Amino acid sequence: MRGFFIGRFQPYHLGHHYVIQHILEKVDELIIGIGSAQESHTLENPFTAGERIVMISRALDEIGTKKKVYIIPLEDIYRNSLWVAHVCSMVPKFDVVYTNNPLVSRLFREANFRVEHTKMYNRVEYQGTEIRRKMIEGEDWEIFVPKSVAEVIKEIDGVTRLREIAGKDV
Amino acid sequence: MRGFFIGRFQPYHLGHHYVIQHILEKVDELIIGIGSAQESHTLENPFTAGERIVMISRALDEIGTKKKVYIIPLEDIYRNSLWVAHVCSMVPKFDVVYTNNPLVSRLFREANFRVEHTKMYNRVEYQGTEIRRKMIEGEDWEIFVPKSVAEVIKEIDGVTRLREIAGKDV
Amino acid sequence: MRGFFIGRFQPYHLGHHYVIQHILEKVDELIIGIGSAQESHTLENPFTAGERIVMISRALDEIGTKKKVYIIPLEDIYRNSLWVAHVCSMVPKFDVVYTNNPLVSRLFREANFRVEHTKMYNRVEYQGTEIRRKMIEGEDWEIFVPKSVAEVIKEIDGVTRLREIAGKDV
Amino acid sequence: MRGFFIGRFQPYHLGHHYVIQHILEKVDELIIGIGSAQESHTLENPFTAGERIVMISRALDEIGTKKKVYIIPLEDIYRNSLWVAHVCSMVPKFDVVYTNNPLVSRLFREANFRVEHTKMYNRVEYQGTEIRRKMIEGEDWEIFVPKSVAEVIKEIDGVTRLREIAGKDV
Amino acid sequence: MRGFFIGRFQPYHLGHHYVIQHILEKVDELIIGIGSAQESHTLENPFTAGERIVMISRALDEIGTKKKVYIIPLEDIYRNSLWVAHVCSMVPKFDVVYTNNPLVSRLFREANFRVEHTKMYNRVEYQGTEIRRKMIEGEDWEIFVPKSVAEVIKEIDGVTRLREIAGKDV
Amino acid sequence: MRGFFIGRFQPYHLGHHYVIQHILEKVDELIIGIGSAQESHTLENPFTAGERIVMISRALDEIGTKKKVYIIPLEDIYRNSLWVAHVCSMVPKFDVVYTNNPLVSRLFREANFRVEHTKMYNRVEYQGTEIRRKMIEGEDWEIFVPKSVAEVIKEIDGVTRLREIAGKDV
Repeated sequence: MRGFFIGRFQPYHLGHHYVIQHILEKVDELIIGIGSAQESHTLENPFTAGERIVMISRALDEIGTKKKVYIIPLEDIYRNSLWVAHVCSMVPKFDVVYTNNPLVSRLFREANFRVEHTKMYNRVEYQGTEIRRKMIEGEDWEIFVPKSVAEVIKEIDGVTRLREIAGKDV
Repeated sequence: MRGFFIGRFQPYHLGHHYVIQHILEKVDELIIGIGSAQESHTLENPFTAGERIVMISRALDEIGTKKKVYIIPLEDIYRNSLWVAHVCSMVPKFDVVYTNNPLVSRLFREANFRVEHTKMYNRVEYQGTEIRRKMIEGEDWEIFVPKSVAEVIKEIDGVTRLREIAGKDV
Repeated sequence: MRGFFIGRFQPYHLGHHYVIQHILEKVDELIIGIGSAQESHTLENPFTAGERIVMISRALDEIGTKKKVYIIPLEDIYRNSLWVAHVCSMVPKFDVVYTNNPLVSRLFREANFRVEHTKMYNRVEYQGTEIRRKMIEGEDWEIFVPKSVAEVIKEIDGVTRLREIAGKDV
Repeated sequence: MRGFFIGRFQPYHLGHHYVIQHILEKVDELIIGIGSAQESHTLENPFTAGERIVMISRALDEIGTKKKVYIIPLEDIYRNSLWVAHVCSMVPKFDVVYTNNPLVSRLFREANFRVEHTKMYNRVEYQGTEIRRKMIEGEDWEIFVPKSVAEVIKEIDGVTRLREIAGKDV
Repeated sequence: MRGFFIGRFQPYHLGHHYVIQHILEKVDELIIGIGSAQESHTLENPFTAGERIVMISRALDEIGTKKKVYIIPLEDIYRNSLWVAHVCSMVPKFDVVYTNNPLVSRLFREANFRVEHTKMYNRVEYQGTEIRRKMIEGEDWEIFVPKSVAEVIKEIDGVTRLREIAGKDV
Repeated sequence: MRGFFIGRFQPYHLGHHYVIQHILEKVDELIIGIGSAQESHTLENPFTAGERIVMISRALDEIGTKKKVYIIPLEDIYRNSLWVAHVCSMVPKFDVVYTNNPLVSRLFREANFRVEHTKMYNRVEYQGTEIRRKMIEGEDWEIFVPKSVAEVIKEIDGVTRLREIAGKDV
């Protein structure tokens, strides 16, 4: 059984990490779609798809799964009625979608896909918006992402980029 | 050292296979970009990006490399002057480009990338156009692709698709 | 004389219905343009162009006009300076535009079209935003749309779609 | 039962006319999709979608059917894997597709639609390419289109447009 | 030395005027990029690129510089990671970027460009948003733009356009 | 009186040069539109819009006109029915179009513009296709372009780019 999970991963954090570990117990292969792949250098989407691929790849190394995982950037198609067809053309066939997003859930179910909800882990602190805010404000953010992801963000000097875009002196 | 190699892989064939094996001897990590990812169901581009990802992934399993390989679909951007920036935003950073395509080579060198030519293997038979022609005409094509790729094409009944699009009775 | 009237029809409601009946008294033929045709499955635009075509078509059957009416979906062109040319390429020639929208009015008048204002009918309750809100909140909405349109929305289970996208339990 | 038929209608000719009459005997409602709706003023696609809508509408008046017919312009989406979803979002639901085009046929059948072939009428002379050539060369073309369509083309002075674009003195 | 300066110029005002005069003292040639060139007829972007070109051109005549100035409309590319490449393809080569915009600054510095901040002149009143608000409200706005620009805006009856789009009676 | 002249200028050659000199005798101001501005690095369109702007600007310096000339890159809009509106939004208002292109001529005349033909100068040798062929084949091409344009092409090493894209050893 192959599963599909999608996120924007701005950045990849422990919320994603625990959900993916959980899904990996249930599927034989997993596709991780990176949504809004074309976006970068904004307050909402600071990191490029390429940078996010590296984050996810390193985090998966931390998990150390033996299962095959496909990490695939997905550009926005800007038309909800075409989005499922777009995803299906860009990734290997899959049997089940894991998501808590109401729109993603609705679109896949209208196309007769099996959709399952994912467990939530500390939804207050493990969320991209909050982590990006901490980065901008100079608060502690490393504890909310896997160790390897914190390293990637440092390698690309990601916090400086985010702070500069936010108009903060750096 | 991380290398970048791009192709359309319509389908992935032994020419690709030998080049990739050769490159894998020289790099620590390899990015395989799938060009014209948005194309499918045409005589030139019969297979979806998702199908091509599976072909490449299975072919890499055949090779059995220990090195990390990223397989990344790349949609066309339709502007040569933006193409290198587009690729760089979608994939992890890389140090060297392997290509024999004059345009790819020129664009990356204008952007100050190191570009290396790849060895050619039986350029007459190991080429997509010829293999697709054989599929349409009902000739023997399996011997020009890795065994695992032939299986993928059969799983998705790819030859029937190509023949139908070509207007052949099936 | 051929008239042009445009709306998003999310959904088609009695406000549209009365205006169109009024316009039909004045023109020989009417073009009804469906704006933002490419949008669907959002809180602002829950219904596809195809679904909206059926709503309008059935509502026109209720009116029972003998006059020729063209119902034409219009995708957004995202450039105001091109919008009139876009509309004119997609629909039959017309002599007069009926609209109360300031931008639509301005753009057509800059292009030397005759523009007429339409009568307003119960602008408080006959408006898409309010009707969609009632659908989401489980309030009574059927009385604000033609009977045939309420049937269409039920056939496609449109309220469930809207509620799900809004993240409401259904 | 609702049927779907698609063409570019450059221009609408007797081949289309007879096929549509034939289909109308079999369905309760018919959707006529106008492909490449965004194209105009080229040798292949001289007429705008709006002009083609008028041609089809007048031709249907000639037929005098009592059945409901939807005439809907469809812009190209430039991705075969999204095309069926695109069509389905823009038109009312349908039960059967009538086409002889191998790609259209394949795409709808991959999406599990019922596809039926249409009868061919004088495929040598009733074809757009040949009729456009006659228009350019100043040969007799009116006999290959319905009378009402010839009138529409004269009203918009369509032959002059085509000849000018072809670089002919007019 | 050739400099690059970008703005939306909705409209061109004295803030721009003083900055450009200041930059002209430092460079041999100046490129003025007109951002969001495809936008017009909105509250944020009322003027077309063509109209903005005339404003800037006349304002430069007022300055009376002998140096070569290129005025170039730049359509949005909607992808930050491609934006610098887009700009570089559309304008002559340049040595230094003058900007106070954090995103523009960051993007050019990531691409290894020299970026310099510009002096600010009366940032409270010399700003587009405030001048457009005055136009809509019928307040005095001419004193915040060069005399020649006020004339251009009157020639095109720009205030009426803005007021109409804002839904004001005119 | 303001005139409009459009070309792709791949490269700007003596044919353009003489036509522009001729037009400059008749108009007060001239707009030179650079068509297919987004194209570059192809056999048909080797030079970027920025490079072509420099060619035209230097060639105008050679002419030494006192009249105001606007040089404006125009991206393709890919829809003939929108093209005139697109041009008009991007450039200052103009009174007359100078062109020998049948499509450009037709589109502007359908939009009620005054269109005038331009004189032809040595149409055999002064044409882009032929000059690019000479560049690729290593033949003498400098004599067919203004001296200043030959210098620009050398500065950017344009012939090497074209030869590389053509797959020639360099």
